Amino acid sequence: MNTPQNLKGFRDLLPKQMLIRNKVMSVLKEVFERYGFEPLQTPTLEYADVLLGKYGEEAEKLMYIFDDPGGRKVGLNYDLTVPTARVMSQYQNIPKPFKRYQIQSAYRAENTQKGRYRQFMQCDFDVLGSSSPLSDAEILAVISDVFTKLNLPNFIIKVNSRQILFSLMEKAGIPETMRFPTLQSVDKLDKKPEEEVREELFKKGLSKTQISLLFQCLKDAEPNENLTQIIELAQGLGAKNIMFDPRMVRGLDYYTGMIVETVVTEPKIGSVTGGGRYDTLIQSLGGPEMKAVGASIGMDRVCDVIEELNLWEEMKETATQVLVTIFSPETLSASLDVTTFLRENGINTDIYQDMESKLEKQLKYANQKGIPYVVIIGEDEVKENVVMLKNFQDGTQQKVQKEELLSLLK
Amino acid sequence: MNTPQNLKGFRDLLPKQMLIRNKVMSVLKEVFERYGFEPLQTPTLEYADVLLGKYGEEAEKLMYIFDDPGGRKVGLNYDLTVPTARVMSQYQNIPKPFKRYQIQSAYRAENTQKGRYRQFMQCDFDVLGSSSPLSDAEILAVISDVFTKLNLPNFIIKVNSRQILFSLMEKAGIPETMRFPTLQSVDKLDKKPEEEVREELFKKGLSKTQISLLFQCLKDAEPNENLTQIIELAQGLGAKNIMFDPRMVRGLDYYTGMIVETVVTEPKIGSVTGGGRYDTLIQSLGGPEMKAVGASIGMDRVCDVIEELNLWEEMKETATQVLVTIFSPETLSASLDVTTFLRENGINTDIYQDMESKLEKQLKYANQKGIPYVVIIGEDEVKENVVMLKNFQDGTQQKVQKEELLSLLK
Repeated sequence: MNTPQNLKGFRDLLPKQMLIRNKVMSVLKEVFERYGFEPLQTPTLEYADVLLGKYGEEAEKLMYIFDDPGGRKVGLNYDLTVPTARVMSQYQNIPKPFKRYQIQSAYRAENTQKGRYRQFMQCDFDVLGSSSPLSDAEILAVISDVFTKLNLPNFIIKVNSRQILFSLMEKAGIPETMRFPTLQSVDKLDKKPEEEVREELFKKGLSKTQISLLFQCLKDAEPNENLTQIIELAQGLGAKNIMFDPRMVRGLDYYTGMIVETVVTEPKIGSVTGGGRYDTLIQSLGGPEMKAVGASIGMDRVCDVIEELNLWEEMKETATQVLVTIFSPETLSASLDVTTFLRENGINTDIYQDMESKLEKQLKYANQKGIPYVVIIGEDEVKENVVMLKNFQDGTQQKVQKEELLSLLK
Repeated sequence: MNTPQNLKGFRDLLPKQMLIRNKVMSVLKEVFERYGFEPLQTPTLEYADVLLGKYGEEAEKLMYIFDDPGGRKVGLNYDLTVPTARVMSQYQNIPKPFKRYQIQSAYRAENTQKGRYRQFMQCDFDVLGSSSPLSDAEILAVISDVFTKLNLPNFIIKVNSRQILFSLMEKAGIPETMRFPTLQSVDKLDKKPEEEVREELFKKGLSKTQISLLFQCLKDAEPNENLTQIIELAQGLGAKNIMFDPRMVRGLDYYTGMIVETVVTEPKIGSVTGGGRYDTLIQSLGGPEMKAVGASIGMDRVCDVIEELNLWEEMKETATQVLVTIFSPETLSASLDVTTFLRENGINTDIYQDMESKLEKQLKYANQKGIPYVVIIGEDEVKENVVMLKNFQDGTQQKVQKEELLSLLK
């Protein structure tokens, strides 16, 4: 019989990965709520009608659509924007603007490749029902605070605007029908040499003059009034490392104003946030008419890189700070007592489960788990009313009073 | 066109509900990790083979089984035990005992009724790979600590043991084939009068003598050696309110030793935890041979009751503590400055998004949202270098220094 496996394209998150993820998640929640964003959760399953006809044929091929046991046509959520559009229709009495964040899985049957999973953590924060540049600025301020608090301070928040891109193309004499194809090529400028992109545009039918003019305009571009105001407001809200980048396009074509992308440069993680203003999307997805701006943080990518590069050195294999061992039936109650004392004082404490194991075996267990400290209470320690604290990192051990453990372990 | 709706049997969690849920979740995580339990997450989808043939035909009718876009037969996780059994087979190098907790949704196409949803939060914590009574005791200690920290101190942790129940039935002369049917009836004793249960047992074929003997034995029952030791160890670990209840059976028939159920008596929430020792289950679910003990906390029920009965009076409609208003373009930068100052100092702060609204409208927004405080900075306040703090609860307002806000808002 074969060992049962997790489904292809999906993954289990074992304790070390979960500890990183839980910490990232708690930083995100803390920052979102600090800026007045509120949590929302929608179900994993939606009526298929809610999901279909929104994102085009290609996307629908990746959707998990099926009949539930009651014969209803249903599907797993493909993103969090469509469910949010539904929520905004269904609960029209939610006061606007609604600053909401939503951290939950989305499901897409993509071709699997390293770092891409069919179930991934979507992490959206948006201001729904506001056209104010201050809302755009809040999105930038949140991004800045998130990466600062995640201890990834070398980030650049690239901003641009669809209006700027369109007016660039107008100046370069590029006809309206060619705008999206042109943007698609410009978008590749951070990955490909300029020469190749020029070639590609030529093949798409732009003239050499149009291409030259386009690149000249990209070079001379400056933020328009709206974007200048957004950047100033964001800086007023404490946002750092904002950079105007006229070559930044963002893939999705539903943005209507500011667009934003964050890259972490050192360590070189690449793009970790995308977003922008989308004043017509909620309605086109079946929601009410509602101007909105928001962004999404690539949480899986951030967590994976923190793990791979071991960026949080203080992160242990385990959340457990100390293992209390059991020496003998006579010392058991002393071990229980210290365990309870430590737990009551906020120290994550494990006690060795088998009450009749050799000390060696108990130490080996702590070592395997990566628990940094072990407490040993033998008969001598009970008599002297002390405990032995063993530090696995430097191999030292010392006899201390129970109360002293708190300062030594914290 | 109809307004799109959430799928029947599923639900959206709006901010107030999410705030309660997030707080409950963070208490649970904190307690679990305090006791040396580590987080695990498995995917929403599993191969159908992993799920089927484990829990019987009735359960399988409730499973969401379907073909994914790649033609694989897959299903949504029905509980967290089967995926955990798979994990224990797949990653045999996880050090044992493995104390793990898992908080995620499970999916069952049950008939919908009040308080029962097809997607529900499962919240399991188990010691896998241990037969030690200390592991049973740890489960009881965690339960006790969880309900104490959730501020639901009027709980009773009812414990019993399958061995005790079996030896009772042996003493009463009930044949082996009648044991599970008998237990099913005994299990109803907390909901039905004893007379009805006696009647039911008679109809199932027990003699009047057997029934009388059974009830006499239930009355005289005492904890056996194993359960006595578990209770003592749990008390040594600080567990409170443990009560031996020989009439407590637990529905599921896979338990092999201690069984546990927690009821909250005031407010009358009823059963909020179930669990016990299940030494053969992991193997029967396709995992390796592995003794285990654990319990599951009814998180949806706990959250719903906290919301309905308004048990956490300090819980607001929103996590936002204060709204900073914008008086005029001239005072905007002062409003941005105070907002940033408050956020940097850990106060959840919203700033009114539209920069050109009347103050009245801004106050109405704060009121609608349930934000308890509002900061107003008019031209006078800018000149005097102070801010006006308005308290919505008592209607008072006072001029204070920016720095004073911290102590007033915390």
